[in-house]
Amino acid sequence: MEPKAAPPARVDRLQPARPQGLVVVITGNGKGKTTSAMGMVLRACGHGLRSCIIQFMKGDLYSGEWDGVKRLGDLVELHATGKGFCGLRGNPYGREEHRANAQAAIALAREKMLSGEFALVVLDEINNAVRHRLVDLEQLLALLDDRPERLHLVLTGRNAAPEVIERADTVSEVNEIKHAYRKQIEPQPGIDY
Amino acid sequence: MEPKAAPPARVDRLQPARPQGLVVVITGNGKGKTTSAMGMVLRACGHGLRSCIIQFMKGDLYSGEWDGVKRLGDLVELHATGKGFCGLRGNPYGREEHRANAQAAIALAREKMLSGEFALVVLDEINNAVRHRLVDLEQLLALLDDRPERLHLVLTGRNAAPEVIERADTVSEVNEIKHAYRKQIEPQPGIDY
Repeated sequence: MEPKAAPPARVDRLQPARPQGLVVVITGNGKGKTTSAMGMVLRACGHGLRSCIIQFMKGDLYSGEWDGVKRLGDLVELHATGKGFCGLRGNPYGREEHRANAQAAIALAREKMLSGEFALVVLDEINNAVRHRLVDLEQLLALLDDRPERLHLVLTGRNAAPEVIERADTVSEVNEIKHAYRKQIEPQPGIDY
Repeated sequence: MEPKAAPPARVDRLQPARPQGLVVVITGNGKGKTTSAMGMVLRACGHGLRSCIIQFMKGDLYSGEWDGVKRLGDLVELHATGKGFCGLRGNPYGREEHRANAQAAIALAREKMLSGEFALVVLDEINNAVRHRLVDLEQLLALLDDRPERLHLVLTGRNAAPEVIERADTVSEVNEIKHAYRKQIEPQPGIDY
């Protein structure tokens, strides 16, 4: 006779002897980079930790996380500071405008990082912003140098610079094996945006 | 003079002409698979969509998402049904016990999937459970065959079976480039659990 499904005899809880902030980079061309950062924010909430999300190059196209994080209450701040993907066909804004927004965003990132108010700061699409030179690599490296020791910093976007990967603690590359849009399936709410 | 950072002139909203459910697989050996699924749940909440998360092989070790999703209110159900990673050193449960829990979990998955109550069902670590034969591949494929057309199904865990990838719409492989634990950094709350 098969044993019955029963809960585990006990639930363990990890507790690091040495809490420390990590630099996490999520890069690659597949789906699940921003999404992964949002998952870390949700997880951090479970520990009662406060997060600040700053989205680069995003702000012109609604995405569900904008309202999703509101349900997490005062544990999360989200700033969608951008004007879409610079250079993408149909985007009506000039390079200078994109750069002005990204420059304001990196200044905001520094302010939030140093405020002492957050355990986790997400710079969403920052790798992309650096790749498009809307933010200078040196600006991002200076931010990494000035990171408070206990602060987690999560950097997303494809084409992460080697210098950023070098300085990170954990780096994942998300690769596309297949994607629904290649079958002409439209983006679906909840999954794609 | 650089232009001032200003919000975009307008915010667009996508709306698919043909809403449809997607099968999304997040596999690979890197950090960010469960995390990515949690991000989709958070995003779905922003659209007012309800999600059900069923965690296979997890339930013996606290993770922040257990409390994180509680903050999302009645839009999310989470069931951590497992007893840890079968075969992992130190895990005190026998294979039969792990299988009994996974079998109860797959039955629950079917029930939730067919209930009509959810837009998104996450089967967290299901790929791993299939790999360890706690769930038979045929059981998972039957579940995929019976998926309601409008339901999104997200399957996580390393070693996704080729037959599952074949049936999926979107598949990402998360590869480890580096991970903090290789530098003997302990798992940190909010990031790793």
